[in-house]
Formats: sequence, structure tokens, C-alpha cells
Amino acid sequence: MKGSLLYEGKAKKVYYVDGKPEQLILSYKNDATAFNGKKKDQFAGKGRLNNLITARIFEHLHQQHIPSHFLKALNDNEQIVQKTTIIPLEVVVRNIAAGSLTRRLAIPEKTALNPPIIELFYKNDELDDPLINDDHAKRLADVTEHDLDHIKILALKINEILKRLFRQADLEVVDFKLEFGRLADGTIVLADEISPDTCRLWDVTTGEKMDKDVFREDIGDLIETYETILQRLEENKCVK
Amino acid sequence: MKGSLLYEGKAKKVYYVDGKPEQLILSYKNDATAFNGKKKDQFAGKGRLNNLITARIFEHLHQQHIPSHFLKALNDNEQIVQKTTIIPLEVVVRNIAAGSLTRRLAIPEKTALNPPIIELFYKNDELDDPLINDDHAKRLADVTEHDLDHIKILALKINEILKRLFRQADLEVVDFKLEFGRLADGTIVLADEISPDTCRLWDVTTGEKMDKDVFREDIGDLIETYETILQRLEENKCVK
Ligand SMILES: Nc1ncnc2c1ncn2[C@@H]1O[C@H](COP(=O)(O)OP(=O)(O)OP(=O)(O)O)[C@@H](O)[C@H]1O
Ligand SMILES: Nc1ncnc2c1ncn2[C@@H]1O[C@H](COP(=O)(O)OP(=O)(O)OP(=O)(O)O)[C@@H](O)[C@H]1O
Ligand SMILES: [Mg+2]
Ligand SMILES: [Mg+2]
Repeated sequence: MKGSLLYEGKAKKVYYVDGKPEQLILSYKNDATAFNGKKKDQFAGKGRLNNLITARIFEHLHQQHIPSHFLKALNDNEQIVQKTTIIPLEVVVRNIAAGSLTRRLAIPEKTALNPPIIELFYKNDELDDPLINDDHAKRLADVTEHDLDHIKILALKINEILKRLFRQADLEVVDFKLEFGRLADGTIVLADEISPDTCRLWDVTTGEKMDKDVFREDIGDLIETYETILQRLEENKCVK
Repeated sequence: MKGSLLYEGKAKKVYYVDGKPEQLILSYKNDATAFNGKKKDQFAGKGRLNNLITARIFEHLHQQHIPSHFLKALNDNEQIVQKTTIIPLEVVVRNIAAGSLTRRLAIPEKTALNPPIIELFYKNDELDDPLINDDHAKRLADVTEHDLDHIKILALKINEILKRLFRQADLEVVDFKLEFGRLADGTIVLADEISPDTCRLWDVTTGEKMDKDVFREDIGDLIETYETILQRLEENKCVK
């Protein structure tokens, strides 16, 4: 059933599905990378955690009528998704200032951003994924003004859903990165992953960082942290 | 009549006008700076040229119904303008790829940008005037969505007017930087300068760079170049 390898990224391997050209298998790896690949390590069990956390989140988003590539988790490390043509944008939503925003614009860490700030980065490793504006995106990422409006509306809806979901898990959604892709018929859907690798999550009670920043800043046990995220999400599966 | 010094910038001194608190005098200096002040020099006559070129352009924009701060040239080096509260944005319009755009996004120099690309930079020397998007601008520069729409529409109108004006002077408008300010009643008007220091202008026939790039790249005589711009604009004063 699993076909040939289409692409190996930093966090996942992407496989074709034999006989189903409109599907892909995403196989989550144990690698952790940060600072555009400059910092690297391996953590046994990380692939499983990100696969299951992403699956849990995409199932929830599906219930909330967010169109996405997600079909189902296949096993601990793999999920099956609809093949898309990825739009080469990283769409970042920020509720609280952290990370590059604080350095680029001198907004102090922890500043509440209300309304949230949306940023577009051009997915291009050679250029170090630069920040761009809508005019650049229209030029570089084959999107229209209308596509961008649609993507931003989806991103803000996803933000509201994630904030509510993680609140029940005692976590504050500080910021997160989304990718969108186009199905064969042109429809834009949410793709890629949503995991502690792609979100900043702060414990509501202690303020502790519960995401890839524990790796970036060497301030905790990555596997323990991600395991806690998964457990808290599982505990709330039945809560509305 | 000229009052006390309000501000000394890299290119101009700004003076109050005695008895007219709603006006300012901009006094153009002979200094040239590039790369955020890292490269510096002085050119006798440069202040006069930028003052007269800016005056000529703002008069033309006024005839074309673009609201601006400009009142009149006082003498060779000075002009009198309406005092505004400057909106801390550099609004860049690009018709052809050049400069930072080619480096940041690997768009080859000379690529035609049609429609033109508008970029916003946050006027903040400590942060090196970083590129920002509309969400950042709304957060940092005290502008609403509506203000930004208005500023962009004005910038595109100004682009069309400048393209036509410089075409008659055998010059291609590659890109330029605008600043906007608010009058006491809140109205947004074009402010600051428009000169070969703030535009990229290429000779239509020879392709030669006829702007501050001759200084940035040490490829010509700055004064001769700016003198040619002024002369060509003067020659066409009566042409429609
Ligand atoms: N539904 C989908 N269809 C096609 N490609 C997808 C889909 N979902 C995710 N992808 C792509 O699969 C790849 C996943 O690999 P990974 O996340 O490890 O990449 P990466 O190292 O982050 O590099 P990059 O995202 O820059 O290619 C990404 O390129 C992602 O854009
Ligand atoms: N109508 C106006 N009202 C108030 N300020 C103005 C007006 N027009 C221009 N200015 C401001 O006057 C200053 C002109 O000085 P100059 O262009 O030399 O500054 P600069 O060195 O470019 O530095 P910066 O623009 O970052 O302050 C600028 O700060 C500009 O924004
Ligand atoms: Mg990725
Ligand atoms: Mg200036």
C-alpha cells in the first residue's frame, strides 16, 4: 500500500499510496531541527507524538468544518492525507509576542496581540524563509488576493478553534504556523502538521514553555513535554 | 521668519516657522548617506538639486490633485511645507526589481513588476527600518486598515503620475519611497521628499542608473547626474 518516497523533509517523509494517486502518507520522523536546520537532534518517540497530536487536532478541526488534507492516522508514526499542491507560504498566527517577532520589531515577549497578527513567510530554504507581504505572495506563491483573503479567514478561524481546544488542556496558544495546499480541483485546504513543533504553547498556570522552544532553548525534556500535550488533549477528547 | 531647529536628519534640517505653528521649513543638506548611514559623503550643490527637484515634483503632483505637505520653494536649499505628524512608514512602490528586493526574494534585477509591488518599512533606525506587513503597521504605526488602503491608493496614483512625468524626461521610474503625514485635522497627505535620493531612475535609452545608486555603487558623478535630472524635468515643464 505505501508507495515510493516522494519527499524527505526535516520532520517527515512523504510517500505515495499505491493505486491512490490523490493520497499521500506522511511518516513522522524522530528528528528535531531548529534555526533553519542549524541545530539538530533525534528523540526516540517524537515522530509518534507529533503524528498523534496532529491527528487529534486535525480531527477536531474537521468536526469544526475546517477543510483539510487529513484522512486518518494509519499507525503510531503515519497518517494518510489528501495529496495537495502546497502553496509555498508559512502562515503564522500570533496571539502573544514571542520568537522572531520580538527580535524583528522589538515588541516585548508576552505582549498580547489583539487582534492577532498574521504573517506570511515565503517557503524557500535558500532564502531562509523570509517574511513577505501580500504583494510579494501574489507574485511568488501563485495566489490571488481572493486566495489570500480566504487563507487568512481560515487561519483566524483555526486560531479560535485551537485557542478553545488548548484552553481545555490548560495551554495558551501563543503562535503557530500553518501550511495550505490545493486539491486537484483547486480547493484550498489546510495541510502539513499542527504539533508542538509548529506551535508555541504556554502552560496557563505555570507559564512554562510546552513546545519546540524546550529544544531551541535547551530548557526541558522534549519527549516528556510532548507526551504531556498529547495526554492533556486525550483527556479532553469528550469535553466540548 | 525661520524659527528654531526641530530636527536634523541625514538629508535635511527641519525648522519651525515663527508665528506659523502649522508650517515647517525643510532645509536640504549636501550630505549623502547610504546603507543606513554606514556610507557617508558630502557633495556641494546636492541640497539645492534635491530641494528644486522635490519642489518641481510636488508642484506637478499638486496639479494632479495629490494632497501633500508642499507649499513652496523658499530659495535654492529650502522649501516651506505644512507641518504633519509623520506616519512612521516608508512606503515603497516598485515597478522593476532592483535593490533589496532582488537580494531578499531572489527576483532578478530588471524583472518587470506588473502590477507594481508596494512594500511598507517601519521607520525605526534602531531596527534598521525592517520590512513589515499591514498587520504590523496597524500595530506599530497607528494606522487603521482604512488608512492603509488610502495610503496605497495614493501611492499607486503617485506612481502613475511619476511614471508619466519621468517618461517625458527619458527616465524609467524603477522604484521610489514615500512618506505620509497627518495634518492637524487628521487628513493624510504626502510628505517628505521625492528626489533622486529616494527614487531609482534609469535612463530609458542607455539604461544608466541616474539616482543615488551612482553614490551607493560608486559608478558616476552624483552632482552631474542630479543636475541632469533637474534639467530634464525643467525642459518638460510646459509639456503635458
Ligand atoms: N497534503 C500534502 N500534500 C503535499 N505535500 C504536503 C502535504 N502536507 C504536507 N506536505 C509537505 O510535505 C513536506 C513535509 O515534510 P517536512 O515538514 O519534514 O518538510 P520541511 O523539512 O519542513 O521542509 P519544507 O516544509 O521546507 O519542504 C513539506 O514540504 C510539506 O509542505
Ligand atoms: N511635513 C512634514 N512634517 C513633519 N515632518 C516631516 C515632514 N516632511 C518630512 N518630515 C520629516 O523630516 C525629517 C527629514 O529629515 P531627513 O530626511 O534628513 O531624515 P532621515 O535622516 O531620513 O531620518 P528619518 O526619516 O529616519 O527621521 C524626516 O524625519 C521626515 O520624516
Ligand atoms: Mg515542515
Ligand atoms: Mg529621510
